[in-house]
Amino acid sequence: MEIKGFEIKETKYDLSLVKHYEGVFTQGNGYMHVRGSYEELIEGSSQNDSTLRRPDNVTIEKKKPTVSKWGTFIPGVVGKHPFLQAEMINLPYFFAMQITCEDLESGHKERLGDLRNVIKSYERTLDMKTGVLKRSFTWKVGESAVKLSFSRWISMADKHLAFLRLEVSCLKGKVNLDIMGDVDPKVTTNGFNHFEEVNITGEDGIKTCKVATNGGDLVTIRSVMTRSGEVMLDAGESALIEKVVEVYTSRDIDSYKPLDNLDLDVDKLFKDHCAVWNKKWEAADVKTEDEKLQGALRFSVYHLIRSCNEDDPRVAICAKGHAGEGYYGRYFWDTEINMLPFFIKTNPKAARNLLMFRYLTLPGAKRNAAKYGYSGARYAWESSVTGDDECANWQYADHEIHVTADIVYAIMNYVNATGDEEFLRDYGLEIMIETAKYWIERVDKRSDGSYNLLGVMGPDEYLPMTDNNAYTNRMVKYSLEMTLKYADKYKEKAENLGFDERLEKKVRDVYENLKLPYNKDTVLIKQCEDWDRYADLDFNVVWKDRNDFFARQISQEKNYRSKALKQADVLLMMYLFPEDFTEEQVKAAYDYYEPITTHDSSLSAAIYGIMAQKLGYTEEAKRFLQKMIDIDLDESRKGAEDGIHIANCGGLWQFVTCLT
Amino acid sequence: MEIKGFEIKETKYDLSLVKHYEGVFTQGNGYMHVRGSYEELIEGSSQNDSTLRRPDNVTIEKKKPTVSKWGTFIPGVVGKHPFLQAEMINLPYFFAMQITCEDLESGHKERLGDLRNVIKSYERTLDMKTGVLKRSFTWKVGESAVKLSFSRWISMADKHLAFLRLEVSCLKGKVNLDIMGDVDPKVTTNGFNHFEEVNITGEDGIKTCKVATNGGDLVTIRSVMTRSGEVMLDAGESALIEKVVEVYTSRDIDSYKPLDNLDLDVDKLFKDHCAVWNKKWEAADVKTEDEKLQGALRFSVYHLIRSCNEDDPRVAICAKGHAGEGYYGRYFWDTEINMLPFFIKTNPKAARNLLMFRYLTLPGAKRNAAKYGYSGARYAWESSVTGDDECANWQYADHEIHVTADIVYAIMNYVNATGDEEFLRDYGLEIMIETAKYWIERVDKRSDGSYNLLGVMGPDEYLPMTDNNAYTNRMVKYSLEMTLKYADKYKEKAENLGFDERLEKKVRDVYENLKLPYNKDTVLIKQCEDWDRYADLDFNVVWKDRNDFFARQISQEKNYRSKALKQADVLLMMYLFPEDFTEEQVKAAYDYYEPITTHDSSLSAAIYGIMAQKLGYTEEAKRFLQKMIDIDLDESRKGAEDGIHIANCGGLWQFVTCLT
Repeated sequence: MEIKGFEIKETKYDLSLVKHYEGVFTQGNGYMHVRGSYEELIEGSSQNDSTLRRPDNVTIEKKKPTVSKWGTFIPGVVGKHPFLQAEMINLPYFFAMQITCEDLESGHKERLGDLRNVIKSYERTLDMKTGVLKRSFTWKVGESAVKLSFSRWISMADKHLAFLRLEVSCLKGKVNLDIMGDVDPKVTTNGFNHFEEVNITGEDGIKTCKVATNGGDLVTIRSVMTRSGEVMLDAGESALIEKVVEVYTSRDIDSYKPLDNLDLDVDKLFKDHCAVWNKKWEAADVKTEDEKLQGALRFSVYHLIRSCNEDDPRVAICAKGHAGEGYYGRYFWDTEINMLPFFIKTNPKAARNLLMFRYLTLPGAKRNAAKYGYSGARYAWESSVTGDDECANWQYADHEIHVTADIVYAIMNYVNATGDEEFLRDYGLEIMIETAKYWIERVDKRSDGSYNLLGVMGPDEYLPMTDNNAYTNRMVKYSLEMTLKYADKYKEKAENLGFDERLEKKVRDVYENLKLPYNKDTVLIKQCEDWDRYADLDFNVVWKDRNDFFARQISQEKNYRSKALKQADVLLMMYLFPEDFTEEQVKAAYDYYEPITTHDSSLSAAIYGIMAQKLGYTEEAKRFLQKMIDIDLDESRKGAEDGIHIANCGGLWQFVTCLT
Repeated sequence: MEIKGFEIKETKYDLSLVKHYEGVFTQGNGYMHVRGSYEELIEGSSQNDSTLRRPDNVTIEKKKPTVSKWGTFIPGVVGKHPFLQAEMINLPYFFAMQITCEDLESGHKERLGDLRNVIKSYERTLDMKTGVLKRSFTWKVGESAVKLSFSRWISMADKHLAFLRLEVSCLKGKVNLDIMGDVDPKVTTNGFNHFEEVNITGEDGIKTCKVATNGGDLVTIRSVMTRSGEVMLDAGESALIEKVVEVYTSRDIDSYKPLDNLDLDVDKLFKDHCAVWNKKWEAADVKTEDEKLQGALRFSVYHLIRSCNEDDPRVAICAKGHAGEGYYGRYFWDTEINMLPFFIKTNPKAARNLLMFRYLTLPGAKRNAAKYGYSGARYAWESSVTGDDECANWQYADHEIHVTADIVYAIMNYVNATGDEEFLRDYGLEIMIETAKYWIERVDKRSDGSYNLLGVMGPDEYLPMTDNNAYTNRMVKYSLEMTLKYADKYKEKAENLGFDERLEKKVRDVYENLKLPYNKDTVLIKQCEDWDRYADLDFNVVWKDRNDFFARQISQEKNYRSKALKQADVLLMMYLFPEDFTEEQVKAAYDYYEPITTHDSSLSAAIYGIMAQKLGYTEEAKRFLQKMIDIDLDESRKGAEDGIHIANCGGLWQFVTCLT
């Protein structure tokens, strides 16, 4: 793989990397996303396998290896899985094409996508500047040879449209090609069929595929081909085939009117598309000297831009950037902490929209609180469109509560940067008050008058039930501080939201007496009050293969009782609250925690990299930068198979912009 | 319900209690068990529902309410469930009969089991002395009335045989009955079909039902009826129908030869059957003055005798006494701690057999240890026939490790009572050495030289990850002490089992330095070293309905961080190691823990009752005795719906025999 300027280029035809590059080359426009799968539906992986996938520990789950997994995602189109709860549905693949070629000399005939195809001069390039994915190669069929050049893009200007163009030329011999522009509806999501009805019709040359999902949505995919069927070519001859696709769903009924026909001015539409991308890059491009870093940074920015639907506050950005089925298309805290700063800086409208998503899902957050027996609102550890917690592993769902405070932090981050206090007053305040109602019941009071958050999983997910996690408590304290501040500032509004004197007093009491497991004189800040309970671990004995995840080499049981961390926790707190900590404290924390942190989470490298940089640990910072780059781009890791680590993209951007 | 002498009598026909009494009236002979379901397959509960049951928290799981659940269990006949792991399979119901009656005057015809049947003079009695279940009632059909009297037993002498007898008489009018003696194979287990093939054939009047299970077993049920089809009766006339059933499986191929025919001398077989029961009662009956207690005690003893297959060390006693699908027919630590004392005292052969089961499943225990990355053997929290851990909830499977030491304690309990040191030498020692190998790797060493068991769930299951749980550590210390003692006594044998000098030294080091979170001067012994971390709870706020489980009224999240216990923990340790603790310590522990113990577990009442009695807390002891009795016998609780709480039966027996 090469990255240069705005281009990512794949130069080998390698079946073992097909799935990885499908993730890397995902195209999209916020509204819809398509993995970079081959048009010809490569053999070797049934896409409609039905498997009973269970909610395993995400770090160590074992998936069935497949050559390819094509995926089409429209954020918001979700349905219930019997074990995994609500998940984003993988929709029919509309860039599909069935291509067969007959060598007219020998009569030999084969299907493109057959694993025995002889493919040469293979090259695939994603132009991140315009989001166009191009692929060309020669295909030897019997004594003949053809060259195929695909080019495709999903319009950034007209978000319901996608385009595919195939140029095929005969280099040698004489061939008869059969080219059919299909839509492949035989797809499942995490092994489960979410389609209640699939209906394919053809009229006036337009193929229409309608899918009714088990989430109650109706998805329509209309496509037209300029030419299909048999194409006879002599050496030197070529043919051009274009496919135009329109996609819309019952969710867009108010915002989108389907086209009358698909007879479009593609050149003009492409210009419009490029213009929008151009504008986005103008706002977001950051230049660096280091060519490799420049490429990785643009890769991150490309996927961040693509992932975000800035026009629809009913959806956010899922953990895999809508580029795969990993994490079920759900929204986590990393939207607020890892990605939001990028949008605040480059596209405040998108940032506001992401926070508006949290406002719109407040009813779900209230249901979550009620389900646990609390008042107020408790944001989901894993949210889908309703805000109800979809996380099927109780240790995370029950104990990783910091997300609720992270959202308030993010609101303040946005408001402080943009000055959009209207958002705070009209939406943020309600989130603050409702979550404060939850916090004052979630705390346990001790006889010394202190309030405590017990049984908590902090950002580090390898200690599931700790007491007074420093990060969480600091975050909650900040959240309550802001609640008090703005409830006072917008007194009338706050009172209308139920923030009366009694509540104000209680919130103030908890705010003032919420225990922080450190003070300004603590040199080494403990991750949690009960840190000393955990056992020291000899990493050299347990973690033999440092190229593989730590969690795959230790039992969860031993992991959960050992001083082995998944990711930045104290360090993340220090990054988010820089005023609170002295350099001595940061240094002590870094020196202590880094050697026992496994960085199994893709959220960790960016934070450690930034903090290393701040401490002047230049070599360390470089090491973490390489880690960040490798997460999705190192072929040997195949990290993008199930989607893009989009939080790491946001982290990389923060790392670079912190430096400058 | 009435219990008197050896009889439990049900005197009402109450559809809401059908399922409960199916559990109460379960019959069996160790080899096979049948719930007390009506022969006529009562309407209102489909038995072959297919549901995707998931491994929920057992205390709070919600099940689909059904009128009835017939169950036929042969311990050892197990199969894989896609989510619940291996479970005991519910086999075809062989006491089934299809009975319809036509009133010849009016032509009115109805099926027995129709919920609209008019049933009068209903009476059902289990004679616990002989295990015979009798039921009689009158059934009004149109203008006619018939009386039906069922009687059935599962032979204790010939363990593959079961018998059913129906006397039907016409009290009024004139009727035409149609009576068919079916076997109902349309049953699932926890909503899952474990049958790969069902084959029903008839030849020479013998119906044969063969079931191939997904566990690889072949189960054969052969039955013959003395009479079937139409029976015409005038007022005053009666008819007698007998059904003989033979059951065997591919697991019995070495121990049982199927009969040539089913033309048997039933009277003689019944005599033999009664003689065996009689002998068992002679060994096991304990007399008390209190009639109610006497009844409950006999109920306990009846089910303990019935549940235990003393001839087959490949199976043990499951948590529901093979009387329902609860706990999936799995074996827990309560076999050793709660039930074994009964068998040690009344049937040492059976006790030895139960321990032999653990020896035979040592390979599974070794696989469990290896799965977690340890040497040696780690017994399953939930064992089926192979010894592999089948528990699908990681908090129990991973952290409730005391079972491995409990087994060694039980071996010593058996050996000390019976003097059977041969068992110890030939089998027990190997268990000791293999489990010691596990313990020395499961401990964490601290800088003070102490060994610690961190991340542990003790007997109390409401604190899932505690450190140095007093019960567990005491038990492990004892287990290691016995290992050292008998490895020294049987030095050569021990050496052959790999107990070399190095291992001896390591085991001794861990034994000597394993931390106990108390000493002889500690007045109040803490359940675990980190006890103070947990929050005080206002039970009056949380636990409003004391008749329902505590866990149903609090979220697991809050429960796990609060000082609220499910069951006896420190008190159980004090019961099992009476020499270790002063009365002051016991009193302090009782007074402190009892008010914060919810007794949600049926294992708790017996231990608290015994300890109350020891402390002279007579009223408290009475209260717990009533609790023990009510667990399976209080109609309003319907406690026996999913099977008998067989550990509580053992506990009640211990309570009573402790007193005398």
